[in-house]
Amino acid sequence: MRVLGIDPGLRLTGYAALEARQPTDFAAIPAILEAGVIRLRADSTDAEGNARPAAASISDRLLELERDLTDIIQRLRPDLIAVEAVFAHVKHPATAIVMAHARGVVLLTIRRAGVPLAELKPAEVKKSLTGSGRATKEQMQRAVQTVFSLATIPEPPDVADAIAIALGAHRRSALSM
Amino acid sequence: MRVLGIDPGLRLTGYAALEARQPTDFAAIPAILEAGVIRLRADSTDAEGNARPAAASISDRLLELERDLTDIIQRLRPDLIAVEAVFAHVKHPATAIVMAHARGVVLLTIRRAGVPLAELKPAEVKKSLTGSGRATKEQMQRAVQTVFSLATIPEPPDVADAIAIALGAHRRSALSM
Repeated sequence: MRVLGIDPGLRLTGYAALEARQPTDFAAIPAILEAGVIRLRADSTDAEGNARPAAASISDRLLELERDLTDIIQRLRPDLIAVEAVFAHVKHPATAIVMAHARGVVLLTIRRAGVPLAELKPAEVKKSLTGSGRATKEQMQRAVQTVFSLATIPEPPDVADAIAIALGAHRRSALSM
Repeated sequence: MRVLGIDPGLRLTGYAALEARQPTDFAAIPAILEAGVIRLRADSTDAEGNARPAAASISDRLLELERDLTDIIQRLRPDLIAVEAVFAHVKHPATAIVMAHARGVVLLTIRRAGVPLAELKPAEVKKSLTGSGRATKEQMQRAVQTVFSLATIPEPPDVADAIAIALGAHRRSALSM
Protein backbone atom coordinates (compact mmCIF):
# COMPACT_ATOMS: atom_id res chain seq x y z
CA MET A 1 0.00 0.00 0.00
CA ARG A 2 1.59 3.22 -1.18
CA VAL A 3 0.18 6.62 -0.20
CA LEU A 4 1.25 9.91 -1.77
CA GLY A 5 0.62 13.01 0.33
CA ILE A 6 0.54 16.39 -1.38
CA ASP A 7 0.66 19.90 0.10
CA PRO A 8 -0.20 22.25 -2.78
CA GLY A 9 1.38 25.66 -3.19
CA LEU A 10 2.29 28.01 -6.04
CA ARG A 11 5.95 28.37 -5.05
CA LEU A 12 6.53 25.02 -3.38
CA THR A 13 4.31 21.95 -3.49
CA GLY A 14 5.39 19.34 -0.96
CA TYR A 15 4.98 15.65 -1.69
CA ALA A 16 5.78 12.45 0.17
CA ALA A 17 5.27 8.79 -0.73
CA LEU A 18 4.86 6.35 2.16
CA GLU A 19 5.02 2.59 1.73
CA ALA A 20 3.16 0.46 4.27
CA ARG A 21 4.30 -3.16 4.46
CA GLN A 22 1.37 -3.92 6.79
CA PRO A 23 -1.41 -1.79 5.31
CA THR A 24 -3.97 -2.91 7.91
CA ASP A 25 -1.74 -2.11 10.89
CA PHE A 26 -2.68 1.31 12.20
CA ALA A 27 0.32 1.48 14.54
CA ALA A 28 3.07 0.34 12.17
CA ILE A 29 5.06 3.26 10.78
CA PRO A 30 5.29 3.13 6.98
CA ALA A 31 8.60 3.78 5.26
CA ILE A 32 9.27 7.09 3.52
CA LEU A 33 9.86 6.02 -0.06
CA GLU A 34 10.50 9.55 -1.33
CA ALA A 35 9.72 13.06 -0.09
CA GLY A 36 10.49 16.44 -1.54
CA VAL A 37 9.10 19.59 -3.07
CA ILE A 38 8.07 20.61 -6.55
CA ARG A 39 9.83 23.97 -6.78
CA LEU A 40 8.07 26.14 -9.34
CA ARG A 41 10.95 27.86 -11.06
CA ALA A 42 9.32 31.24 -11.34
CA ASP A 43 12.40 33.40 -11.09
CA SER A 44 15.01 31.02 -12.36
CA THR A 45 16.01 29.92 -15.85
CA ASP A 46 14.18 27.91 -18.47
CA ALA A 47 15.17 24.52 -19.89
CA GLU A 48 17.67 26.17 -22.24
CA GLY A 49 19.24 28.13 -19.41
CA ASN A 50 17.81 31.50 -20.46
CA ALA A 51 16.81 33.86 -17.69
CA ARG A 52 13.06 34.05 -17.24
CA PRO A 53 11.09 37.09 -16.09
CA ALA A 54 11.34 37.67 -12.34
CA ALA A 55 7.67 37.01 -11.86
CA ALA A 56 6.66 34.22 -14.20
CA SER A 57 2.90 34.16 -14.40
CA ILE A 58 0.65 31.95 -12.34
CA SER A 59 -0.25 30.17 -15.58
CA ASP A 60 3.37 29.13 -16.13
CA ARG A 61 3.60 27.83 -12.59
CA LEU A 62 0.39 25.86 -12.95
CA LEU A 63 1.64 24.25 -16.15
CA GLU A 64 4.90 23.29 -14.43
CA LEU A 65 3.02 21.95 -11.42
CA GLU A 66 0.79 19.78 -13.60
CA ARG A 67 3.77 18.35 -15.51
CA ASP A 68 5.93 17.67 -12.46
CA LEU A 69 3.08 16.13 -10.47
CA THR A 70 2.09 13.92 -13.40
CA ASP A 71 5.69 12.70 -13.58
CA ILE A 72 5.77 11.99 -9.84
CA ILE A 73 2.50 10.03 -9.96
CA GLN A 74 3.69 7.98 -12.94
CA ARG A 75 7.04 7.28 -11.30
CA LEU A 76 5.83 6.48 -7.78
CA ARG A 77 2.55 4.78 -8.75
CA PRO A 78 0.64 5.44 -5.51
CA ASP A 79 -2.50 3.43 -4.59
CA LEU A 80 -3.97 6.48 -2.89
CA ILE A 81 -3.26 10.22 -3.00
CA ALA A 82 -4.08 12.45 -0.04
CA VAL A 83 -4.57 16.20 0.21
CA GLU A 84 -5.94 18.40 2.95
CA ALA A 85 -9.56 19.46 2.66
CA VAL A 86 -10.20 23.12 2.01
CA PHE A 87 -11.23 24.89 5.15
CA ALA A 88 -13.65 27.76 5.03
CA HIS A 89 -12.30 29.82 7.90
CA VAL A 90 -8.81 30.84 6.94
CA LYS A 91 -6.61 33.48 8.54
CA HIS A 92 -5.21 34.76 5.25
CA PRO A 93 -7.87 34.65 2.50
CA ALA A 94 -5.58 36.21 -0.13
CA THR A 95 -2.97 33.48 0.39
CA ALA A 96 -5.63 30.78 0.45
CA ILE A 97 -7.12 32.04 -2.83
CA VAL A 98 -3.75 31.87 -4.57
CA MET A 99 -3.07 28.42 -3.07
CA ALA A 100 -6.47 27.21 -4.29
CA HIS A 101 -5.32 27.74 -7.90
CA ALA A 102 -2.59 25.16 -7.27
CA ARG A 103 -5.01 22.89 -5.41
CA GLY A 104 -7.42 22.93 -8.36
CA VAL A 105 -4.66 21.83 -10.72
CA VAL A 106 -3.51 19.17 -8.23
CA LEU A 107 -7.06 17.75 -7.97
CA LEU A 108 -7.40 17.78 -11.77
CA THR A 109 -4.07 15.98 -12.20
CA ILE A 110 -4.98 13.31 -9.63
CA ARG A 111 -8.40 12.82 -11.23
CA ARG A 112 -6.86 12.47 -14.67
CA ALA A 113 -4.33 9.93 -13.37
CA GLY A 114 -7.24 7.85 -12.07
CA VAL A 115 -5.77 7.42 -8.57
CA PRO A 116 -8.25 7.38 -5.63
CA LEU A 117 -8.26 10.62 -3.63
CA ALA A 118 -8.46 11.02 0.15
CA GLU A 119 -9.31 14.43 1.57
CA LEU A 120 -8.35 14.91 5.20
CA LYS A 121 -9.29 17.80 7.45
CA PRO A 122 -6.25 19.64 8.84
CA ALA A 123 -7.34 18.63 12.37
CA GLU A 124 -7.43 14.96 11.34
CA VAL A 125 -3.89 15.19 9.95
CA LYS A 126 -2.68 16.84 13.17
CA LYS A 127 -4.45 14.40 15.46
CA SER A 128 -3.24 11.38 13.51
CA LEU A 129 0.38 12.46 13.91
CA THR A 130 0.48 14.09 17.35
CA GLY A 131 -2.68 12.95 19.13
CA SER A 132 -3.91 16.55 19.17
CA GLY A 133 -6.01 18.26 16.51
CA ARG A 134 -4.53 21.59 17.60
CA ALA A 135 -0.83 20.89 17.22
CA THR A 136 1.27 23.84 16.06
CA LYS A 137 3.35 23.78 12.89
CA GLU A 138 6.53 23.31 14.95
CA GLN A 139 4.97 20.44 16.92
CA MET A 140 3.97 18.80 13.65
CA GLN A 141 7.49 19.08 12.22
CA ARG A 142 9.07 17.65 15.38
CA ALA A 143 6.50 14.83 15.45
CA VAL A 144 7.36 13.90 11.86
CA GLN A 145 11.02 13.76 12.83
CA THR A 146 10.31 11.59 15.90
CA VAL A 147 7.75 9.23 14.37
CA PHE A 148 9.90 8.50 11.32
CA SER A 149 13.21 8.54 13.30
CA LEU A 150 14.74 11.17 11.04
CA ALA A 151 18.16 12.66 11.79
CA THR A 152 16.86 16.20 11.19
CA ILE A 153 13.56 18.00 10.83
CA PRO A 154 12.42 17.75 7.17
CA GLU A 155 12.98 21.02 5.32
CA PRO A 156 11.30 22.96 3.85
CA PRO A 157 8.22 22.59 6.11
CA ASP A 158 6.13 21.70 3.04
CA VAL A 159 7.85 18.29 3.02
CA ALA A 160 6.92 17.64 6.66
CA ASP A 161 3.34 18.67 5.85
CA ALA A 162 3.18 16.25 2.94
CA ILE A 163 4.55 13.40 5.11
CA ALA A 164 1.96 14.18 7.80
CA ILE A 165 -0.88 14.19 5.24
CA ALA A 166 0.26 10.85 3.80
CA LEU A 167 0.52 9.32 7.27
CA GLY A 168 -2.98 10.54 8.17
CA ALA A 169 -4.37 8.96 5.00
CA HIS A 170 -2.50 5.70 5.67
CA ARG A 171 -3.90 5.54 9.19
CA ARG A 172 -7.45 6.31 8.11
CA SER A 173 -7.14 3.65 5.44
CA ALA A 174 -5.68 1.10 7.92
CA LEU A 175 -8.57 1.70 10.31
CA SER A 176 -11.14 0.99 7.60
CA MET A 177 -9.58 -2.31 6.46
CA MET B 1 -9.67 40.02 -33.73
CA ARG B 2 -11.55 37.52 -31.61
CA VAL B 3 -11.62 37.79 -27.80
CA LEU B 4 -12.93 35.07 -25.50
CA GLY B 5 -14.04 36.23 -22.04
CA ILE B 6 -14.29 33.67 -19.25
CA ASP B 7 -15.94 33.95 -15.83
CA PRO B 8 -14.77 30.86 -13.91
CA GLY B 9 -16.99 29.01 -11.45
CA LEU B 10 -17.40 25.46 -10.17
CA ARG B 11 -21.11 25.21 -11.01
CA LEU B 12 -21.29 27.57 -13.97
CA THR B 13 -18.42 29.01 -15.97
CA GLY B 14 -19.59 31.80 -18.26
CA TYR B 15 -17.91 32.36 -21.62
CA ALA B 16 -18.39 34.80 -24.49
CA ALA B 17 -16.57 35.22 -27.79
CA LEU B 18 -16.58 38.70 -29.33
CA GLU B 19 -15.52 39.41 -32.90
CA ALA B 20 -14.18 42.87 -33.68
CA ARG B 21 -14.22 43.83 -37.36
CA GLN B 22 -12.29 46.99 -36.52
CA PRO B 23 -9.87 45.79 -33.84
CA THR B 24 -8.23 49.21 -33.44
CA ASP B 25 -11.54 51.06 -32.96
CA PHE B 26 -12.15 51.48 -29.26
CA ALA B 27 -15.71 52.71 -29.74
CA ALA B 28 -16.97 50.14 -32.26
CA ILE B 29 -19.04 47.44 -30.60
CA PRO B 30 -17.82 43.96 -31.52
CA ALA B 31 -20.30 41.26 -32.47
CA ILE B 32 -21.19 38.50 -30.01
CA LEU B 33 -20.11 35.38 -31.87
CA GLU B 34 -21.19 32.98 -29.14
CA ALA B 35 -21.95 33.27 -25.44
CA GLY B 36 -23.07 30.71 -22.89
CA VAL B 37 -22.16 28.76 -19.80
CA ILE B 38 -20.26 25.57 -19.15
CA ARG B 39 -22.67 23.86 -16.77
CA LEU B 40 -20.79 21.37 -14.62
CA ARG B 41 -23.19 18.47 -14.41
CA ALA B 42 -22.55 17.68 -10.79
CA ASP B 43 -25.97 16.32 -9.88
CA SER B 44 -27.12 15.08 -13.23
CA THR B 45 -26.37 11.91 -15.18
CA ASP B 46 -23.19 10.61 -16.76
CA ALA B 47 -22.55 9.98 -20.46
CA GLU B 48 -24.37 6.63 -20.27
CA GLY B 49 -27.39 8.22 -18.61
CA ASN B 50 -26.71 6.72 -15.17
CA ALA B 51 -27.56 8.86 -12.18
CA ARG B 52 -24.48 10.33 -10.55
CA PRO B 53 -24.06 11.10 -6.85
CA ALA B 54 -25.81 14.30 -5.78
CA ALA B 55 -22.52 15.98 -5.01
CA ALA B 56 -20.00 14.89 -7.61
CA SER B 57 -16.60 15.81 -6.33
CA ILE B 58 -14.76 19.00 -7.14
CA SER B 59 -12.27 16.83 -9.05
CA ASP B 60 -14.98 15.61 -11.42
CA ARG B 61 -16.12 19.17 -12.04
CA LEU B 62 -12.58 20.34 -12.73
CA LEU B 63 -12.06 17.55 -15.25
CA GLU B 64 -15.32 18.50 -17.00
CA LEU B 65 -14.37 22.17 -16.96
CA GLU B 66 -10.98 21.45 -18.53
CA ARG B 67 -12.50 19.30 -21.29
CA ASP B 68 -15.34 21.69 -22.13
CA LEU B 69 -13.13 24.77 -22.12
CA THR B 70 -10.54 23.04 -24.30
CA ASP B 71 -13.33 22.23 -26.78
CA ILE B 72 -14.57 25.82 -26.75
CA ILE B 73 -11.07 27.22 -27.37
CA GLN B 74 -10.45 24.78 -30.22
CA ARG B 75 -13.83 25.54 -31.78
CA LEU B 76 -13.82 29.34 -31.42
CA ARG B 77 -10.06 29.88 -31.94
CA PRO B 78 -9.74 33.19 -30.03
CA ASP B 79 -6.76 35.49 -30.54
CA LEU B 80 -6.92 36.53 -26.90
CA ILE B 81 -8.57 35.12 -23.78
CA ALA B 82 -9.56 37.38 -20.89
CA VAL B 83 -10.29 36.61 -17.25
CA GLU B 84 -10.70 38.84 -14.23
CA ALA B 85 -7.70 39.26 -11.96
CA VAL B 86 -7.94 37.75 -8.52
CA PHE B 87 -8.69 40.38 -5.94
CA ALA B 88 -7.29 40.08 -2.44
CA HIS B 89 -10.14 41.70 -0.53
CA VAL B 90 -13.16 39.54 -1.08
CA LYS B 91 -16.44 39.59 0.79
CA HIS B 92 -16.84 35.81 0.84
CA PRO B 93 -13.45 34.10 1.21
CA ALA B 94 -14.93 30.57 1.29
CA THR B 95 -16.67 31.14 -2.06
CA ALA B 96 -13.55 32.76 -3.53
CA ILE B 97 -11.40 29.80 -2.45
CA VAL B 98 -13.71 27.33 -4.18
CA MET B 99 -13.88 29.55 -7.28
CA ALA B 100 -10.08 29.76 -7.35
CA HIS B 101 -9.90 25.99 -7.97
CA ALA B 102 -11.83 26.56 -11.19
CA ARG B 103 -9.73 29.62 -12.04
CA GLY B 104 -6.53 27.60 -11.66
CA VAL B 105 -7.79 25.00 -14.12
CA VAL B 106 -8.96 27.75 -16.50
CA LEU B 107 -5.52 29.42 -16.45
CA LEU B 108 -3.83 26.05 -17.00
CA THR B 109 -6.11 25.25 -19.94
CA ILE B 110 -5.50 28.64 -21.57
CA ARG B 111 -1.74 28.29 -21.06
CA ARG B 112 -1.74 24.82 -22.59
CA ALA B 113 -3.76 26.06 -25.59
CA GLY B 114 -1.06 28.69 -26.16
CA VAL B 115 -3.50 31.60 -26.43
CA PRO B 116 -2.38 34.99 -25.01
CA LEU B 117 -4.04 35.82 -21.68
CA ALA B 118 -5.35 39.20 -20.55
CA GLU B 119 -6.08 39.72 -16.86
CA LEU B 120 -8.42 42.62 -16.08
CA LYS B 121 -9.20 44.06 -12.70
CA PRO B 122 -12.93 43.93 -11.89
CA ALA B 123 -12.98 47.75 -11.74
CA GLU B 124 -11.49 47.95 -15.25
CA VAL B 125 -14.19 45.62 -16.60
CA LYS B 126 -16.90 47.70 -14.94
CA LYS B 127 -15.50 51.03 -16.08
CA SER B 128 -15.00 49.81 -19.63
CA LEU B 129 -18.66 48.83 -19.90
CA THR B 130 -20.49 51.44 -17.82
CA GLY B 131 -17.99 54.27 -17.36
CA SER B 132 -17.95 53.58 -13.61
CA GLY B 133 -15.59 51.23 -11.80
CA ARG B 134 -18.22 50.80 -9.08
CA ALA B 135 -21.19 49.63 -11.16
CA THR B 136 -23.47 47.10 -9.46
CA LYS B 137 -24.11 43.63 -10.88
CA GLU B 138 -27.54 44.78 -12.11
CA GLN B 139 -26.09 47.87 -13.77
CA MET B 140 -23.53 45.67 -15.51
CA GLN B 141 -26.20 43.30 -16.83
CA ARG B 142 -28.36 46.16 -18.11
CA ALA B 143 -25.32 47.80 -19.71
CA VAL B 144 -24.48 44.56 -21.55
CA GLN B 145 -28.05 44.45 -22.86
CA THR B 146 -27.94 48.10 -23.98
CA VAL B 147 -24.45 48.14 -25.48
CA PHE B 148 -25.01 44.98 -27.52
CA SER B 149 -28.69 45.84 -28.32
CA LEU B 150 -29.95 42.55 -26.89
CA ALA B 151 -33.68 41.83 -26.66
CA THR B 152 -33.31 40.59 -23.07
CA ILE B 153 -30.75 40.65 -20.28
CA PRO B 154 -28.35 37.73 -20.79
CA GLU B 155 -29.07 34.88 -18.37
CA PRO B 156 -27.59 33.45 -16.26
CA PRO B 157 -25.59 36.49 -15.05
CA ASP B 158 -22.37 34.52 -15.66
CA VAL B 159 -22.92 35.05 -19.40
CA ALA B 160 -23.25 38.82 -18.97
CA ASP B 161 -20.08 38.79 -16.87
CA ALA B 162 -18.18 36.91 -19.57
CA ILE B 163 -19.37 39.35 -22.24
CA ALA B 164 -18.29 42.31 -20.08
CA ILE B 165 -14.84 40.77 -19.51
CA ALA B 166 -14.37 40.13 -23.23
CA LEU B 167 -15.44 43.70 -24.07
CA GLY B 168 -13.02 45.11 -21.49
CA ALA B 169 -10.18 43.11 -23.02
CA HIS B 170 -11.16 44.17 -26.55
CA ARG B 171 -11.16 47.83 -25.53
CA ARG B 172 -7.84 47.59 -23.71
CA SER B 173 -6.37 45.89 -26.77
CA ALA B 174 -7.86 48.50 -29.17
CA LEU B 175 -6.35 51.31 -27.08
CA SER B 176 -2.89 49.76 -27.30
CA MET B 177 -2.93 49.27 -31.08
